[in-house]
Amino acid sequence: MSEKRAVLLLSGGLDSATCLAWARQEGFACHTLAVDYGQRHRVELAAAREVARTLGAVEHREVAVDLRALGGSALTADIAVPKYRPDDALGRDIPITYVPARNTVLLALALGYAETLGVADLVAGMNALDYSGYPDCRPEFVRAFEVVARLGTKAGVEGAALRIHTPLIALDKAGIIRLGISLGVDYAITHSCYDPASDGGACGACDACLLRKKGFHAAGVPDPTRYASPQP
Amino acid sequence: MSEKRAVLLLSGGLDSATCLAWARQEGFACHTLAVDYGQRHRVELAAAREVARTLGAVEHREVAVDLRALGGSALTADIAVPKYRPDDALGRDIPITYVPARNTVLLALALGYAETLGVADLVAGMNALDYSGYPDCRPEFVRAFEVVARLGTKAGVEGAALRIHTPLIALDKAGIIRLGISLGVDYAITHSCYDPASDGGACGACDACLLRKKGFHAAGVPDPTRYASPQP
Repeated sequence: MSEKRAVLLLSGGLDSATCLAWARQEGFACHTLAVDYGQRHRVELAAAREVARTLGAVEHREVAVDLRALGGSALTADIAVPKYRPDDALGRDIPITYVPARNTVLLALALGYAETLGVADLVAGMNALDYSGYPDCRPEFVRAFEVVARLGTKAGVEGAALRIHTPLIALDKAGIIRLGISLGVDYAITHSCYDPASDGGACGACDACLLRKKGFHAAGVPDPTRYASPQP
Repeated sequence: MSEKRAVLLLSGGLDSATCLAWARQEGFACHTLAVDYGQRHRVELAAAREVARTLGAVEHREVAVDLRALGGSALTADIAVPKYRPDDALGRDIPITYVPARNTVLLALALGYAETLGVADLVAGMNALDYSGYPDCRPEFVRAFEVVARLGTKAGVEGAALRIHTPLIALDKAGIIRLGISLGVDYAITHSCYDPASDGGACGACDACLLRKKGFHAAGVPDPTRYASPQP
């Protein structure tokens, strides 16, 4: 009997690593895809390769798309990544680290890869609770993209039940970390920081760092993140 | 009063050139976007620049995405482009020149660019009649992507009425050519062939060439295409 297969978007961060552990437990042979979109935190691409290897992906690929050519985000243009104090509230406004239509682009690439492989299952790490307010992390967005996937592909037209799995969609960051720990994820090899130091150490103060840090605290799990300087 | 603006996907081919002429006539200031996706017919990128200049785009950009990393199509992998006889029927099966999820990727990039610019109108040249059987050229696909655009962007969440205009959707190739001629398009500067000769001349026998050739014939318009060898 052939193993079921999935294409999984792997950023190298905490969320997608947890997704990979989840998908492996669900019995999926995982083809992981990392997207080099010109992000300033390119160290996450190396983390993605390590996560793919450690958590047993069948194959790991990278695809490059130059979102810098479009600009509009602190992650891809010459705009400073905002820093926060530990107790700042996040998620009310959409921050400048939002990359215009990023998840639409990422899912489109994953969809193309899945179609090439003849795979009907996609896995992505969107979550709608601790999501920094990005619109393309919401369940209604994911469901809408699923319709696009079914209508816009040869596989969908031929009847494949294309499905986007988002196992983290209803979890907060602490819940994601608890899930990952229960599945044996070593978060020390993941990278979340949007503005790492030249040695790859996390800044500890961008929105990604803040969400991650609060998540470990709330989960009651020691934070294994390597920070660039003493934690603020 | 500010001019209304649109982001327009411009491939350098006959369809998107006609779209640009249409959008100009509709009063849109057009930001054209060509996507270098590793297509073997890269000569179309030069054609796109020329079309943008000639038809009065405000700005023309290119964004690179390496769809070759995903494979799966005669346009991006080492698979031969099929050739047809002039009277072969097209459009019953999805041909190998279909690029997995290409239009989803292209629309996602156009959406990101539109969001960066603060533009709510996208224009794309899909047409559902002479469309080679590609699933991502159908109106239901375009409508589904419009929902994704509204749900997956900051602009959409904030209430922008994001809209994808597909002025060619109900036209056959002859109708598109008649529309373009009426708007003053010089089709000699457009490029459609999937498998051009090294000097950029069209092969005359791929599905794109065949559709184009039949279109000029049906429209009763002399075919200005520069072919690589005597027409079959």
